[in-house]
Amino acid sequence: MDYSLLWLDWKRREALPSYTGTLCGEVKTGEGKAALRELIAGFQAMRGRAPTLSSQKESPCLRLEELEGPGEGFSLLREGEGMRLRGCGKGLLYGAFYLLRHLALGEDFPEKTSSPAYPIRMLDHWDNADGSVERGYSGNSFFFREGGPVCTARTADYARLLASCGLNGSCINNVNVKGNALYLLSGKYNKELREIAACLGEYGVALWLSVSFSAPMELGGLPTADPLDEGVRAWWRDTCASLFAAVPNLAGFLVKADSEGRPGPHTYGRSHAEGANMLAQAVEPWGGKILWRCFVYNCTQDWRDTKTDRARAQCDTFAPLDGLFRDNVYLQAKNGPVDFQIREPVSPLLGRLPHTNSLLEFQLAQEYTGQQRHVCYLPAMFREVLDFRLRHREEQDTVAESIQAVTAVSNTGDDYNWTGHDLAAANLFGFGLLSWDPKADPAKIAREWSILTFGNDPRVTETVCRILLGSRETYEKYTVPLGIGWMCVPGVHYGPSPEGYEYDRWGTYHRATCRAIGVERGPEGTGYTEQYAPALAAQYRDVETCPEELLLFFHRVPYSHRMKDGRTLLQRIYDDHFEGYEEAEEMARAWESLKGRVPEDAFRRVQERFREQLRSAREWRDIINSWFYRLTMIPDKMGRTLYL
Amino acid sequence: MDYSLLWLDWKRREALPSYTGTLCGEVKTGEGKAALRELIAGFQAMRGRAPTLSSQKESPCLRLEELEGPGEGFSLLREGEGMRLRGCGKGLLYGAFYLLRHLALGEDFPEKTSSPAYPIRMLDHWDNADGSVERGYSGNSFFFREGGPVCTARTADYARLLASCGLNGSCINNVNVKGNALYLLSGKYNKELREIAACLGEYGVALWLSVSFSAPMELGGLPTADPLDEGVRAWWRDTCASLFAAVPNLAGFLVKADSEGRPGPHTYGRSHAEGANMLAQAVEPWGGKILWRCFVYNCTQDWRDTKTDRARAQCDTFAPLDGLFRDNVYLQAKNGPVDFQIREPVSPLLGRLPHTNSLLEFQLAQEYTGQQRHVCYLPAMFREVLDFRLRHREEQDTVAESIQAVTAVSNTGDDYNWTGHDLAAANLFGFGLLSWDPKADPAKIAREWSILTFGNDPRVTETVCRILLGSRETYEKYTVPLGIGWMCVPGVHYGPSPEGYEYDRWGTYHRATCRAIGVERGPEGTGYTEQYAPALAAQYRDVETCPEELLLFFHRVPYSHRMKDGRTLLQRIYDDHFEGYEEAEEMARAWESLKGRVPEDAFRRVQERFREQLRSAREWRDIINSWFYRLTMIPDKMGRTLYL
Repeated sequence: MDYSLLWLDWKRREALPSYTGTLCGEVKTGEGKAALRELIAGFQAMRGRAPTLSSQKESPCLRLEELEGPGEGFSLLREGEGMRLRGCGKGLLYGAFYLLRHLALGEDFPEKTSSPAYPIRMLDHWDNADGSVERGYSGNSFFFREGGPVCTARTADYARLLASCGLNGSCINNVNVKGNALYLLSGKYNKELREIAACLGEYGVALWLSVSFSAPMELGGLPTADPLDEGVRAWWRDTCASLFAAVPNLAGFLVKADSEGRPGPHTYGRSHAEGANMLAQAVEPWGGKILWRCFVYNCTQDWRDTKTDRARAQCDTFAPLDGLFRDNVYLQAKNGPVDFQIREPVSPLLGRLPHTNSLLEFQLAQEYTGQQRHVCYLPAMFREVLDFRLRHREEQDTVAESIQAVTAVSNTGDDYNWTGHDLAAANLFGFGLLSWDPKADPAKIAREWSILTFGNDPRVTETVCRILLGSRETYEKYTVPLGIGWMCVPGVHYGPSPEGYEYDRWGTYHRATCRAIGVERGPEGTGYTEQYAPALAAQYRDVETCPEELLLFFHRVPYSHRMKDGRTLLQRIYDDHFEGYEEAEEMARAWESLKGRVPEDAFRRVQERFREQLRSAREWRDIINSWFYRLTMIPDKMGRTLYL
Repeated sequence: MDYSLLWLDWKRREALPSYTGTLCGEVKTGEGKAALRELIAGFQAMRGRAPTLSSQKESPCLRLEELEGPGEGFSLLREGEGMRLRGCGKGLLYGAFYLLRHLALGEDFPEKTSSPAYPIRMLDHWDNADGSVERGYSGNSFFFREGGPVCTARTADYARLLASCGLNGSCINNVNVKGNALYLLSGKYNKELREIAACLGEYGVALWLSVSFSAPMELGGLPTADPLDEGVRAWWRDTCASLFAAVPNLAGFLVKADSEGRPGPHTYGRSHAEGANMLAQAVEPWGGKILWRCFVYNCTQDWRDTKTDRARAQCDTFAPLDGLFRDNVYLQAKNGPVDFQIREPVSPLLGRLPHTNSLLEFQLAQEYTGQQRHVCYLPAMFREVLDFRLRHREEQDTVAESIQAVTAVSNTGDDYNWTGHDLAAANLFGFGLLSWDPKADPAKIAREWSILTFGNDPRVTETVCRILLGSRETYEKYTVPLGIGWMCVPGVHYGPSPEGYEYDRWGTYHRATCRAIGVERGPEGTGYTEQYAPALAAQYRDVETCPEELLLFFHRVPYSHRMKDGRTLLQRIYDDHFEGYEEAEEMARAWESLKGRVPEDAFRRVQERFREQLRSAREWRDIINSWFYRLTMIPDKMGRTLYL
């Protein structure tokens, strides 16, 4: 079993329907040919012998019908004992993978007519030119080595993986552009970029690049990067003209501007709209797009300042600019208002950009969710966000309906298994499926991923799904309670440090005393709740109607506060931590039960990660509980150990 | 004014006594010649013209009388209108600097008969082969560049500085031996080491090297570093034979073994004595010595473990070994039982090695005392330690009388002013003077340093001395209260983090709750107090007789505890922090008043450091106070601001 194939390691299947023995129809485009290639290889792997290629219509067969155009949808329909797959080149590719996946799941005639919910479904890589990966937990970059981009066999494997789950874009370098990454714009690496773009393009994956807003100064030697300066505009125009001409399949730029020390238009007294639109004009002749990150806040806040609320910053900054951006600009907003914590409310900004393209950003890299040493299955969280009703209108106002594109910070690296933790690959797969269809069911995704990865042993499938589907709640229980977030070790963001961020400049405070904890974000507090539509604001601002799992995100609450089930807040915190650790133990035991049923190397890798998860979960449980105990000196009602 | 000369920048002095116009007597040794050279240059600088050299006895003159031998003492006596300086070569050198310093202070006939208290008076440099300096706050190494040792003009300047304040040894590489530093033993750098040793030797400074206990494996390719293994012993013997023969003026090795992950004899089931003695035998034929660090403790402690007490570790480990070490082994113990905090009790180990050579280690590098961005004058603390009565005997049992050698972790680097903060040079100077004479007066040292450095403007001297002499107490007040220590940011050790070390593996806990703080170290607690002589143990174990400035080092105390002046512990903590910050402001203002009276470049450098000191002191004040306030919700009696 070759794990580097992940879920594309097609296994032998008995009694395949007979149409898999013959392929007919003609394909012309690169993507169409890739579809045919995948079908041949997939059928061969599942059948044990190659299918026949026939130009005539035979029966039963799988007939490919390629349409002209850039469309991504496909229809896969039964024709007697055969099937017909119809679509443009990219559609055929997605349809082919769909068929192969469902054959592998044991379906004989998986009919489907489908097209993606969003035209942009991508991954953001925080890969640096030196080969390191910011917040990377699965080895080094496979896009960059020794200071420059490289195209390798893994690039092609990667493109296949993306296409197989519906993704069509990849931004290969870190939004914090530094070192040699600056020169990606300069022409210096055009050859390598062209190779990478072509390799990705074979599988319908577009190349994106992160760029520095001050590139005209850093690269062009200009005295300014003012977006209204004619020299700056000309520099970007010329630079884009050279680059886009040299690198076909380049889709556009991702920009982190005026954020955490990055340069941006504010330096010149210009707005984000002026900055983004200037770049948008430069890439427009090439059909390019600008993805403009909204992760903007004051990262030098004085902890004594209780007026400023980081959670407010993105809405305060970008909502007033709604409608001012050009059509080829996408505002990229993280799912929550702060930063990828295990539990955050949905970002209110997502409902405040009705006249602007918006792009929702998730994080597969488990920066705050166990760094791929803990199991934390994220698709259910993603689905929660996508399903969330923003309530600015009565209908069609879920997040999924309000956005125009999706992306996720990738969890991949050059580790053999791609994602460090074998089970973390389910997050990548699940994100892909949700990017295509935001109504996809996380439980079905888990089942599908498990069968494709580990084969169709029902006990394995049941166990893996049980582990995956409970993992997020378990992680949440033994780490940070009730939406408070940020009790992790500063910088590394792994392991507990209850006051690690408390007196720092990052705007992430809980301000706990011996009596109460949390920042009040209602109208009497920072007013953050009022950034939501009135119905939501009303729900959040009232402690009684605020969802309990977000209680400490929205409110400052005494430890004696009664939860809905009658427990005190403090007892709930203790209970969650004890239970969370027990659940982690249970997950580890469940994995142990799979010994001999999953490949030994995968078994051992995951077993080792579980050891670390348990060690770390115990630290979380004991440190968080002890910290609250020391703060309050109120013991656990059940008499469990709290350390002084 | 050339600041790189520090206190050796002799200034013009009016009305010098006439004997400074003529030097007579013969010198033979290298050190004697250095003495003569220094006197010529010094007299020339102070007089404005070179003195006459005369082989005849003229009057009045300064007559040098060189004796044979290795002695370091000197006598400097008046002869009519002249002076006579008598001593062996090194004695002449120390006497010459003594005379020059005191002439510069305005004394005409500074008679003195003196010899040093200890034969080993040295600096430890934590310089790495790559040129970085561990815990270095004044630039990079001047001993290592680009991976290897170098001898430069600064090496000679450095040797002069050391000799001028009485120091006679320098261990040039980090006790944590890594990278190319391993090869210092291998012969690879013999040429450079010989140059450095010769350069230091001109000023009577011996070269020492830090070595790795596992060098026989790392360098020699042996399968073990077991000190009782004959192959290992032979390897060390042969390696020392080659090295000592090739590098004259090499005095011996400094070893950090079985400490913080370093290799050591424990790996092989051998004791520290067996490890140290094996090395001692290898260096013995060359007159070499082994300095064996006692900084040994469990650095992977579980924070839940309340039985283990890091403060106990050194005594528990080394006291039972007293008398087992060879004569050329020195056990090197830090001044306190933990690690160079701003306030610690004197290490009980210093009184528990009556039959072993011991070497007291101070830290000039201000790792925990403001990192040379805060002023913190340390000689008063050093003197406190040296004067401390260990009370194992009735008489002659101060620390100064109980040790056989002194060293200090250096605060120097390749910064122009050597020590980062101009005022930190006073610590280096002061340590030197105390290493020669442990009864030297820190106030007089400050005055002398100020005059030598900034000249004889009484207002400057008074102001600089006021700043220096109050600086340690001020730093203590606004940082960590009453001996609790360790409320600094982990790793960097700069800035406040009240719980930064609380749940970590380093054994440095305060275990604060909303009611009490501190680790109980009396007999009912960890029993640490019982490591002292009975009279001291009795004093420390009782909260009432325990020195207040160490209260929280020795005891767990409720915040309501009444201090001797009637204030509660908590109020004392608040008061100290508010006062400490005010005192820091006062120091900064005092420095401002010297504008135009000290050289502008030095003024500006120090002014900038004071800005950072005030910023940082304000963080300390507010974070520590707020942290206690949040923990207790007891307000400040004076109504000053505490932040929620």
